[in-house]
Formats: sequence, structure tokens, C-alpha cells
Amino acid sequence: MPVFTEYSTSSRDLRVLPSFAPPVPRLSPKFKPEGSQEKYEVVIAGAGPAGLFLEVLLARYGLSDSSLLCVDAKPTSLKSGQADGLQPRTLEILKSMGLLEEILTEGCQMWEVAFWNPSSSKADGASGGIERTSIVRDVAVPARYPHEVTIHQGRIERILEDDLKRYSTRGVQRSTRVTKVHIDEEGDAEFPVVAEIEGPSGVRTVRTKHLVGADGAHSLVRRSMDLKLEGETSDFIWGVVDFVAETDFPDIRRRCAIHSDNGSVMVIPRERIATGEYLTRLYVHVQDEVKPDSDIAAEEGIEGENKTRAKARREKITMESIFAQAQEVFKPYKIRPRRDDAVDWWAAYQIGQRASKQFVKKDSKGINRVFIVGDACHTHSPKAGQGMNVSMMDSYNLSWKLIHSINGLTPHPAGAVDHILDTYQTERSTIAQQLIAFDKEFSYMFSGKIGTEDGKEGLTHEQFLEVFSTGNGFTSGCGIEYPDNVLVEQTTRDGIIEGNDYLQGVLRPGRRLLNVKVKRHADGNRRDLQDDFPSTGRFRILHFTTTDLLSPSGSSSTSLNAISSIIPLFPPGMIELVILHPLPQNTFVWSELPRVVKTEAEMRFHNGTELEDAYRVYGVSREKGAIAVVRPDGYIGTIADLNDTERVERYLKGCLREIN
Amino acid sequence: MPVFTEYSTSSRDLRVLPSFAPPVPRLSPKFKPEGSQEKYEVVIAGAGPAGLFLEVLLARYGLSDSSLLCVDAKPTSLKSGQADGLQPRTLEILKSMGLLEEILTEGCQMWEVAFWNPSSSKADGASGGIERTSIVRDVAVPARYPHEVTIHQGRIERILEDDLKRYSTRGVQRSTRVTKVHIDEEGDAEFPVVAEIEGPSGVRTVRTKHLVGADGAHSLVRRSMDLKLEGETSDFIWGVVDFVAETDFPDIRRRCAIHSDNGSVMVIPRERIATGEYLTRLYVHVQDEVKPDSDIAAEEGIEGENKTRAKARREKITMESIFAQAQEVFKPYKIRPRRDDAVDWWAAYQIGQRASKQFVKKDSKGINRVFIVGDACHTHSPKAGQGMNVSMMDSYNLSWKLIHSINGLTPHPAGAVDHILDTYQTERSTIAQQLIAFDKEFSYMFSGKIGTEDGKEGLTHEQFLEVFSTGNGFTSGCGIEYPDNVLVEQTTRDGIIEGNDYLQGVLRPGRRLLNVKVKRHADGNRRDLQDDFPSTGRFRILHFTTTDLLSPSGSSSTSLNAISSIIPLFPPGMIELVILHPLPQNTFVWSELPRVVKTEAEMRFHNGTELEDAYRVYGVSREKGAIAVVRPDGYIGTIADLNDTERVERYLKGCLREIN
Repeated sequence: MPVFTEYSTSSRDLRVLPSFAPPVPRLSPKFKPEGSQEKYEVVIAGAGPAGLFLEVLLARYGLSDSSLLCVDAKPTSLKSGQADGLQPRTLEILKSMGLLEEILTEGCQMWEVAFWNPSSSKADGASGGIERTSIVRDVAVPARYPHEVTIHQGRIERILEDDLKRYSTRGVQRSTRVTKVHIDEEGDAEFPVVAEIEGPSGVRTVRTKHLVGADGAHSLVRRSMDLKLEGETSDFIWGVVDFVAETDFPDIRRRCAIHSDNGSVMVIPRERIATGEYLTRLYVHVQDEVKPDSDIAAEEGIEGENKTRAKARREKITMESIFAQAQEVFKPYKIRPRRDDAVDWWAAYQIGQRASKQFVKKDSKGINRVFIVGDACHTHSPKAGQGMNVSMMDSYNLSWKLIHSINGLTPHPAGAVDHILDTYQTERSTIAQQLIAFDKEFSYMFSGKIGTEDGKEGLTHEQFLEVFSTGNGFTSGCGIEYPDNVLVEQTTRDGIIEGNDYLQGVLRPGRRLLNVKVKRHADGNRRDLQDDFPSTGRFRILHFTTTDLLSPSGSSSTSLNAISSIIPLFPPGMIELVILHPLPQNTFVWSELPRVVKTEAEMRFHNGTELEDAYRVYGVSREKGAIAVVRPDGYIGTIADLNDTERVERYLKGCLREIN
Repeated sequence: MPVFTEYSTSSRDLRVLPSFAPPVPRLSPKFKPEGSQEKYEVVIAGAGPAGLFLEVLLARYGLSDSSLLCVDAKPTSLKSGQADGLQPRTLEILKSMGLLEEILTEGCQMWEVAFWNPSSSKADGASGGIERTSIVRDVAVPARYPHEVTIHQGRIERILEDDLKRYSTRGVQRSTRVTKVHIDEEGDAEFPVVAEIEGPSGVRTVRTKHLVGADGAHSLVRRSMDLKLEGETSDFIWGVVDFVAETDFPDIRRRCAIHSDNGSVMVIPRERIATGEYLTRLYVHVQDEVKPDSDIAAEEGIEGENKTRAKARREKITMESIFAQAQEVFKPYKIRPRRDDAVDWWAAYQIGQRASKQFVKKDSKGINRVFIVGDACHTHSPKAGQGMNVSMMDSYNLSWKLIHSINGLTPHPAGAVDHILDTYQTERSTIAQQLIAFDKEFSYMFSGKIGTEDGKEGLTHEQFLEVFSTGNGFTSGCGIEYPDNVLVEQTTRDGIIEGNDYLQGVLRPGRRLLNVKVKRHADGNRRDLQDDFPSTGRFRILHFTTTDLLSPSGSSSTSLNAISSIIPLFPPGMIELVILHPLPQNTFVWSELPRVVKTEAEMRFHNGTELEDAYRVYGVSREKGAIAVVRPDGYIGTIADLNDTERVERYLKGCLREIN
């Protein structure tokens, strides 16, 4: 193409850079720190997955380095060990931020679980070893990504930090820790949280509107606020090891629950590493006679008299003892590290399930000031692959409520109690309690024996499988349900939604919107509906029109016209309209539709039945339609009849400030 | 999880970084430039999509900054205008390099084409305007990504350059151009190509083993080597404009071919930009009376006498005239830029189809020394969205042959004629000729009128659709076929492959391996088979085992055992084994299979019938099986019976050097 005349407007760097997330609008005055005191709107203590994820989210929502500080005691992100599992719901959310690709292609996709149990044919006498009982799908519930992904926690952190650096010059302030926190309203009512921060250049004091403790199981923030982890520590001791395996065990690349006469092992296949080899993680139940002293030892660090005893316990466990025990369980198969240097990391830990009842400390006026997220709120066993996920989801839940509050988008006047922010406690402590309950049951069963006939500890494979499968809604993250609150109107008029199999996608306030494939009207693009719900802090009205859509006086048109006058009541861009239609044909044109379809939803208007039947999946009738309001985090807020747009308006007025 | 004992090996940064492509092994001596003369193994002139893609590939294969230099006259990558379409085959290849995600999520996926023609109901007399005749799929052939993607060329360049910087410290040397090239064997037979390079700090002379001209339609490299573009320039003049449209035209988000009584327009929907708006590109047939002088004017620049006339032609075309003409064609719909500053770029060009017969200049010994790629080899109209694609595919084809030659992996001794490298000319000039032929037909038809009854120019919608659809195999890049040569054994024994619908996936030497979904044996992972064929410069043996796989003396076992002794004949890692099986069950274990399955293909051994029927798609019998050798670029090299492993060995010995 020999061009002989060419013109272009001024430099358009934004055309070539990766897209940035659009900031959330701010109605409150711009933050301008005054005086000599170092001040922020949010300080985050800790940059593990929970703290870093929160920082990334707030930075994407528009908080600049002058408003937002995140410090971490470690000099760099993690290089080995610790958490490694991402659940389907977490994958959906990472996708909604454009952060999933590397995880999906370079992590290990875990699609199947193999169950191994004591061999039924004990021909050789003493021990017949183990045999495979069955292979089942690892994720049994519908999800956009129907598998787990295992990948090094440090890599997740690196991916989050890479994204953070697109929005923040400072990034995480490393080798720096919060050493003291207290609330002092008299000193400065607007910035009442006072934190002492210790870094390479000494100790300094900062003030902030809000502080978030993402500082782990031994959280200083939690202890400073007099919040307590409550619960139990079991006697079970486990070893965990990441290594490149040399083995003839047939299922080393599947997740395995192995129950043998010699103990239990869980196999977690892991990602490929730079050598071209694949990592394997083993959780090994270590036989240990010394009982732990008390819960305190494990919770708050080991001090004083417990030290000696804890040391004795610790010293009993070595890498060699973990592998020796694993080898016993794997019989008749052999398993060992491929080379001497093929072990990446190992550790020993004790199973415990504890959670804090309170996740928030308020000031004297009732304003939420100090939050805790992640391990600071709940600790539990790692075997259901929940830790990193529930922690990041705490931050995900908190992030948009916090930015709405700071930016003056909630219906509450500045400096007053904010009921939107209150729901962090309501929603996430509910999940933490469910997590603890599930983990107790799962861990107990997993540490027990299968197939023994001697008394209480006996457990059939079917019982174990039952706990595994029914727990899948929870462990996948896809089945969690937030309780009724200002953001979740669980009482829906009878008959709007057909069915109650919410795990399969039927709409339910408090649950996430399942993904379906839809075909966009404007361009025929085959899309994932969840892509219309990116994590940009916006509410969405999901409108299921009916078969009468093309009738100008029909129920769909009437409803859409009513919706079109609700959207402008709120700050521009804060409510996006997504529309599905059930019509078999795609040949109608914009001029045959209510005007709002093109003006508000040109690129979010889809055929909802041609590729998958979204109406059936969601339990919506094609004749009656429905309206669902979806929160910024992808959870359903309320569901209304097409003609009940008043409910939509009322719900939104409870969530967002109106503009004049 | 309160860990109380923890251990990890030394810093493992590679665990957290994105994976790097593994370098291609080098048998030739390491490159150590000696003397004061600046020397390279490869110099690339031009860093548009073709040159930059070549540099990225060579850097990933392992050429360091001391071996590889790429210069470009522009100070930065492109910021507006020019090419914008990526075809399905290009998308597959970008995926094979891990470079697709941003393109796929942020580009405009073009799934449908709408055809608009003069309205049949001319009730209002003079002109009835246009009406939609039909909407069809934009990509009619099977492909992993069944759509085109349109996205700013500058963004592609930025994505390539970001990846380049992971492998190269220097990156592209900008504001620098090759000003002279000649071959001088007497001065230095190993580095016979001499290039004069002009940069910000002056002029310097470098020597190199190979030089690649990726310097566009007016290529200095091509002219210096006395290679000529041959072909015609038509009289048709077109305007092209990128802008944010304000329109009531119903299909502005679909690719449209509009034929009206007032001329033709092609609509190309484009990506969303930072404002949240979507770009549109229009190609507008501009009515122009002044004929061009000669082909030379368009090819070699406008000089001398032609200057005045060319200037006259140029000055007639303005942005306003393009929009005015477009508006005529769109009637009765209105179309204009949304705002005054909503026009990104515009240009006018003349359609021409020209290609060079020779893509290579050899030295006196017959060694391929100077190559041309991309627009330097072929120019044509932009409307079939081919330019950037064919150009990048030139580089893709050349890249692995060049690295194999440089690294001493081809069967030819160093300094001798390399028949592998010869195939660049054979293969890509064939494609260029097909491109020119297709483009001529398509452009001519597109510039013609539809539905006129007055003489030769009349063209029915059906005729146009026919050219569009049959051309789709070529334009998608999925149907191209390289001719018989040392790398393509097109003669296959009768009866191995059933069927001949190669576009639908039936195996055919010279064509790319279509993607299918397979289920991996080791872990149950549902995978895309193409992911086992990354662009890392390796050959692959794709082995279709039969239903007798579990029989130790069956044809599959015998064949696999023979293959296992072929692989070690060649440099380690240069031949990867990928195995499919047609067995309904997945419960067998490694010990029931030939040993080579686990040792060579543990993570590349798949159930080929459970998800999609790969055997049916590829035309392979489940009872007889087959072996296909796949080249590093994903094209089939040869196909053999299971028992004809000799053919496999012979083919590979023609491609790769044996080791002792």
C-alpha cells in the first residue's frame, strides 16, 4: 500500500499502551495532605497476597501514592514456598482485572483428583500398599475456569506488583513494618489512625483515615486493636515439601488424596519450572508424639516456657523424615527427589482453625477505621487450597467499599457512619466462619484413616468423597453467599426466578453472577458475559428483556425507559447497563429498539440464547424477564420484576449517593 | 497455616518471573567478533512488524545483542495509522509465543461481515440508498481463533518490543538507517555483507553474515541487491480514515463491504480507545479523474517530471473529500466524526499489486546472504487485511531456518550452501504470488459496482461473496500450502490419510496443523493441541497411536520403540514427541505403555477422541494410526505409516544435523 498522502493527529501514546483501568469518580474533595505530619487516606500493613491485592485494587480505582501507602517487612516478594492454589472464583476475578493470562498458561491447571486408598487385595500379607479408587473432576461446580491453578505464591505477588507499578510510582515500601497502631481522634479527627512505621531510615509516625492490617497470622495490627483469633489447634502435624519428583506413582500429575495404612498424603501437582521439569507439592501427615502446649504457642509466637518444648517438636521434623514418611504411604510405589538439589522448600506445620470475630475497629463515632484482612483474620489448614484465595477475597470485598466511602460515593455524608463499609465485617466474617467449619471437617477426615475397621476413626471412601464434593461449592469460591444486608436484598418477590439450584447459576442475591457465553448484537462477537463486569468499581444493571422487546409499548421497552431515567440520578459512569435479549433473530436494527439500548449499552447488548441459554441458566423466564443489580464485585445485589424498577432505584439509592 | 519449621533453597528468581523461551542449541562455535570492525551474524534493516517480529524470534532463539542488530529510521514505534488487521493464523502464531492475550482482549474481534448493496426498493426515485443483503461469518474456515482482530499496528509493535526487551538489552537501534549494502566476499568471506549505517552519531560500516531488508515498499536493501517489484498499479484511488464515528448506520461495529450507486466503502471496526469510545476505519473509493503516470511513480518514489502531476493528484484528496464521498455511499444513513478531534489518521493511496520474484541474494558460493521480507517483497491493497500478516509470516518462516543455519543445526557443513535456507525463497515467494493474484481479483471486484446492468463492470452480490468466501482460506492464513521441497514431502503413501478437505483439518504436508482440543493423560488437563507446538525452533513428531496401544507387540508399541531410537540421533531437545491415543478409557497407567511414552512425552500424551475427535479431523484411522513430522513453524513436513519410521528418519536427516 504505497500511501501518498498521510495525516495523523498529535502523538497518541495511549493508543499503543496496555489499557488502564478507569478510575472511580470522586465527589469528595481531592486529598491534599496539609501540615508537616505524613498523612494518607489508606495505609496497608503487609504486602502478601491480601495486602498487595488491596493496594493494586485501590491504585486502579484511582488512589495515588500520596493517598495510599503499603509497607512490608520483607525486602522482596516471596521466592519460594507457602500458598500455591488459586480457586475458580479467584481466577474469574483476576480475569476481570486482566491479570489472569500468565497464571492460566504457566500455572498448573488442576482438573482432576485421584483418590487412593489401602489396597483391597492384600495378597502379600502385612501391607498391600495403596490402589486407586477413583478419579473425579477437581471442580464439580460450573465456573468460567473449571479447574484450580497451582502456581508459586511469589509469582502471584510478582504479577500483582508488575500491575501495581503501572499505577503507582512508589509501589510497595519494602523492609518497612508497622510497629504500633492506635486510634487518636482528638489529635486529628479526620486522620485518627496513628501508625508507627519502622524502615531502613528509622522510625516515623504517620496518620491515616484508614489502616488495613494484612500482616499475617501474627498480625500486629490485630493485636494492637485487641482483636483475637478464636478457635482450636488440633494435634495433627503435617510436613509440606515442594520438589521435582522421581517416581513411578501413576498419578503424580493429578491432585491426589492418599489414605494408606501408614498415614495420609495429599499430592498437589505444580507448575513447570525453568529446567523444563514440573514441581510437585506433598502434604505429609507426620507421626509425632509430642503434643502442643496450648493454642497460644501457635497463635502468638512461641515464648517463654513453651520455647523449649516447641523446639523439641520442631527438631524432630526434618526433610528426611517427611520423605521417609511419604515413602511409607506411597508403597508399593517409589517417590524421592530427582536430585539432591531438587527440593525447593519444605516446612512443618500444625493444623489449627481460628478466626477473629471482629474484622474491624471503629472509632468513637462508629466509623470503620482499622480493618484486618487475610491470615490476620483467619488461619486454617492449607490442604483445601483456601488461604491465598479467601485472603485476596477479603481485600476484594473491602476494596470497592473503601474507595466508594473515601470518594464520597456512598449515600452517607463525609465523616458519618458508613453502612456500606459496615458490610465488610458482615460479609467476610460470615465467610471466615464457614471456612473454619469446612476446614475442620475436611482436615479431620483427611487426617483420619480410611478403611480401618477399628472404631471411631474409620471412614469410608464414600464419606470422604461426600465431604469433598459438597464442600466444592465453598472451596471453589463459586458457591459462597453473602448474607442479607444493605447490599444484598435476599428477599425477592416469588416467581421472578425459577428454580433454586444456585450453584448451577440460578440468580440469587448474595451470590456471584455465573459466566455464560453470549453473542453481542453490535458485532456478532462471541463473548463471556463476565467480561461486561470488570472490576472497576461500578454497579451494573443486568436487564433480561423479553420476547416483546421489539414492541415499543411492551414490558421490555417500558422497563428500559424507566431504567434510562434511573441511571442519571447517580454519578456519571457509576451504573452501567448490560442487556440480554431472547429473540431468535439478530437482524433487527437499533432504530427498532428503545433508545437507551444504543446510548447506554451499544456494546453490552447481547443475544442471550443463541450460544448458551442464559435465561435458563439464570432461571429467568423469556416471557417475563427480570432485572438484576450486580455489585462492583460481581455479586447480585437485588432482583426485580421488569415493571418493578422502583425496587432497582431504591436499592441503588441505598448503595450510591445521588447527584443533583 | 502457622509454619514452625521452614527451609528453602537459595534465591529462585526464575520461579517468579515469566517464563523465557528456551534457546535453540548451538553446535557451531560461539560467535566472538574479532578485530576492530563491527560485526554481526544478522543485521535487520527496519523494525516495522516484519523486522521487529524477526528480531524478537531470533532473540528468543538465543541470538544475543552481539550477534544481532536491528536498526530503524523512525525515532519510536508507530503511533497512528497503517495496518490494523491480524488474521487467524497470525493469532495462532502469536499464541505460540505467549504474545496474544492483550491483542485478544483489547483488540476488536471481528466475527462478522455485513454486505450492503444498492437498495432494491427505489421508491424515492433517483437513489434509493443502500440496504443490507446479508451478514456472514468473517472467518469461514476452522481456526483456533475464528475471527480477525483489528488493533493499531503501533500497539502490535509495542507488544513485540516489550517482549524483545526481555531478551535484548539494546532492543531496536532507532533513528538509524541502513544507507548502503553490498556483498564483498574478498574482504571477509565469513562476514561478506557490508552495510553502511547512518545514525545520530554519524555513519559507520558493519559487516554481517546475513542481512535482512525489512525496510518497506521502497526498500533500500531490495534496490541495492538489484531485486525488483514487478506488477501493476491500478487506477483506483482510495482514502482511508480512522475516527470515532457518529452514525445511525446499523452495522458500524461489523466489517462491511458497501457497494452503492455512488461508490464503495469498506468498514473496519477497530478497538476501544482510552476515552472508552471505539474507533472505526473506513476505506473509501475516491472518485478521481487524473490517471497515474507509471508504475515507477508508486514504486520507487515520485521524482522528476512526475512530481508535479503526483502533487496535483495528492492535493485533490482531503479529509473532507473522503468524508464527503463516504457520506454519499452511506445514504440514507449519516456518518461523520463525533467531534472535530475525533479523527486519528487519514491517508490516500492507490491500489497496486507488485512482488519481487527473488526474495534472496546469494553470494558467489550460493550461500543466502541478503533477504527481503514484508513490504520490501510485496505490496498490495490493504482491504483484505493481509499486509501485516504476510509480512510477519515471511519473518516467521525465515527465522527458524536462519537460526538453524547459524547454529549449525542444518545437515550442511558451515560455509556451504544450505538447502534449508533456500526454502525461504521457495515457500514465501509462492505465497507472495498467490497474495498478488488474490488481491488483484478481490480489489478489482471491490472497486467495481454491484447490481449495475450496464456492461462489463456489473457484478452480482453472489459473485462477490464467492470470491470473498473462497479467498478466506488464503486470507485467514489457515489455508496456505507450501510447495514440495526438502522440508515438505508432499507425496504421501496412498491410504494413510483419509479425505482431502485440508481446509477442515485433514493432514497435508505443507499446511499448518489445525488445533484440536485434547485431554492430557497425565493430569486430565483439557488442552489445545497447538500448545504442544510452541514457536521454539524444535521439530515435533506427532504420533497417532492405534487401538492396540496397550499391546506390547502391537503396531503402536513397535512404532514408538523405533521412534525412541530416532530421537537421540539428533541434537538434544531438537525433536519433541507428541502422542495421541484413541482409547475410550483413561484408567491405564504408565507401566502398561511403551517406556518412551513417559520418558519423552509424559506431558504431551493425550486422549485424542474424548473431547474432539482428532483422528477424524486429521483424517487418521484409529486402527492404522499415522506419524506426522511437524516443522518448527507448525507446518506438516511429512506423513508416514506407523511402520514406516524410516521415512521419518530420512526426512529428519534432511532437515537436521545428526550428532555422533
